[in-house]
Amino acid sequence: MSFQPVNPITKDLLNIVSDWQAFPEGAAYNIRQDSQCAGRRSTENIEIRPKSGGSGLDIIVKAGTKGESCYIPACITKNDVDDLVYNDFYIGEGADVTIVAGCGVHTDGDGESRHNGIHRFFMEKNSKALYLEKHYGSGDASVEAARRIIDPETQCELAEGAYLEMDTSQLEGIAHTHRKTSAKLEAGARLVIKENILTEADSKASTDFYVELNGDGCGVDLVSRSVAKDDSHQEYHSVIVGNAPSTGHSECDAIIVGNGKVDALPELRANNGDAMLIHEAAIGKIAGEQIIKLQTLGLTEEEAEARIIEGFLS
Amino acid sequence: MSFQPVNPITKDLLNIVSDWQAFPEGAAYNIRQDSQCAGRRSTENIEIRPKSGGSGLDIIVKAGTKGESCYIPACITKNDVDDLVYNDFYIGEGADVTIVAGCGVHTDGDGESRHNGIHRFFMEKNSKALYLEKHYGSGDASVEAARRIIDPETQCELAEGAYLEMDTSQLEGIAHTHRKTSAKLEAGARLVIKENILTEADSKASTDFYVELNGDGCGVDLVSRSVAKDDSHQEYHSVIVGNAPSTGHSECDAIIVGNGKVDALPELRANNGDAMLIHEAAIGKIAGEQIIKLQTLGLTEEEAEARIIEGFLS
Repeated sequence: MSFQPVNPITKDLLNIVSDWQAFPEGAAYNIRQDSQCAGRRSTENIEIRPKSGGSGLDIIVKAGTKGESCYIPACITKNDVDDLVYNDFYIGEGADVTIVAGCGVHTDGDGESRHNGIHRFFMEKNSKALYLEKHYGSGDASVEAARRIIDPETQCELAEGAYLEMDTSQLEGIAHTHRKTSAKLEAGARLVIKENILTEADSKASTDFYVELNGDGCGVDLVSRSVAKDDSHQEYHSVIVGNAPSTGHSECDAIIVGNGKVDALPELRANNGDAMLIHEAAIGKIAGEQIIKLQTLGLTEEEAEARIIEGFLS
Repeated sequence: MSFQPVNPITKDLLNIVSDWQAFPEGAAYNIRQDSQCAGRRSTENIEIRPKSGGSGLDIIVKAGTKGESCYIPACITKNDVDDLVYNDFYIGEGADVTIVAGCGVHTDGDGESRHNGIHRFFMEKNSKALYLEKHYGSGDASVEAARRIIDPETQCELAEGAYLEMDTSQLEGIAHTHRKTSAKLEAGARLVIKENILTEADSKASTDFYVELNGDGCGVDLVSRSVAKDDSHQEYHSVIVGNAPSTGHSECDAIIVGNGKVDALPELRANNGDAMLIHEAAIGKIAGEQIIKLQTLGLTEEEAEARIIEGFLS
């Protein structure tokens, strides 16, 4: 089969969202460009199999695979693309892999483009995966004019003893995002999600987590860090349901700059006396002392603010 | 005007919910018994004025009143009472008073009785009030059979510099409660709410807080402690809206015993970059070490558990 050539805009986006220049030797990958395929490689242990009709991929990791990685970035390089993709990850028993799945959207001037990725993770017994995802928008118009939209939806099933860590970030340039993540955990499974979201101009971002702790000794740790600048608005909603002796922790920290708004709504449902559930949230602006401290080191107020935000989101 | 005599059940309830035997000399009071009045006294600075039709009271505290107290307990002593009362508190500029407003409901065997108190607080500039409220149910039937219901609704308006502290507790014996509290705060005002709720058998308790921080430098502190025993179910929902440079803190700590369930849903809405909003919640059962520690001091497991719950709710 033949692939679309990787265009220059995709190259730029790939470098930002998935360190494309440094795809490791021997890694499996699939590059999605404007709903087409611009390159794919399977390996002996990680098979990337396209679903019929180009609507997505099945990524199948063999049981016992260790230390391998898989890249599946998706890019949109022009206006008026409405991309919808279904990717299913099957992580075999005892495997331990890294998956990199960034998304970049480029539009110029007025116009809308959207990437909607629906991911399902089937983590088999004692399997382990690190999932990395960066979202980024670029182009020569402001966020307001250019409607760059990324709506990821993720469903996870963790069998006994499975471990999944998801590190997701929204960098600049995305006008609208609605992120939905749900998970069900069996005995001894562990889910760690670290989410960093930056919004600016009049952009909107909302996040929904829904996690069911169904097996003895399973646990979840959700950590969300937000920076809402200008007139942007963020909403954080999480539900942790403790149906078994288990541990759940949710944390939402947000920094407001300018007229940004942040709503936090973390929900705990303890249906079992041995479920230990905790959440914390703090919303506020950067403390004046922090700015002044960096100013005494020679930074301007703007530079100090940028430095603090960078540290907070890293 | 003539008052109903205080009956023996009311006497017992009053002692529990408002330390009736020790009403201080010279305090203002009104005793509500089965929707009737069983005693009332105004003082020079605190006027208790019945609303027409016996539907409630206007409690008017003169500006500058210091160190006085006012008791307005309500009791239901039999089955099939459906009591609805509207009490309005007008706390004059610079006043500093204590208000005690417990509620006891007694029913025997099968049957339902309900007290629904709707309270409004108008706190004038720099006024200060401590509001104490205990809820308690008694009678010779289990909570399941006896439907003792207390649904308090409280609305607060705090003018500049006003301070209101509400300490509310639900003791045993209440089958169902839905507590709604809302408040609007002007500049420099401060609201502190401490809520302790114990549920047992198959009882239900839900709490809704809605607080708007509208003035510069105002602040709210909500602290809820819950113990859900047996098959009881508690829901905690709070909304803190920061519309001005202000501080908001919400904390929900819950202990689960047996098959108790607790849902916590604290919500923060920061509409102003200078609003600093924080919440925390923790739900779990009593740590095994705590029980063992008290057992080594000679207590049985049940005694140790009771002691820990008592300390937590006090």
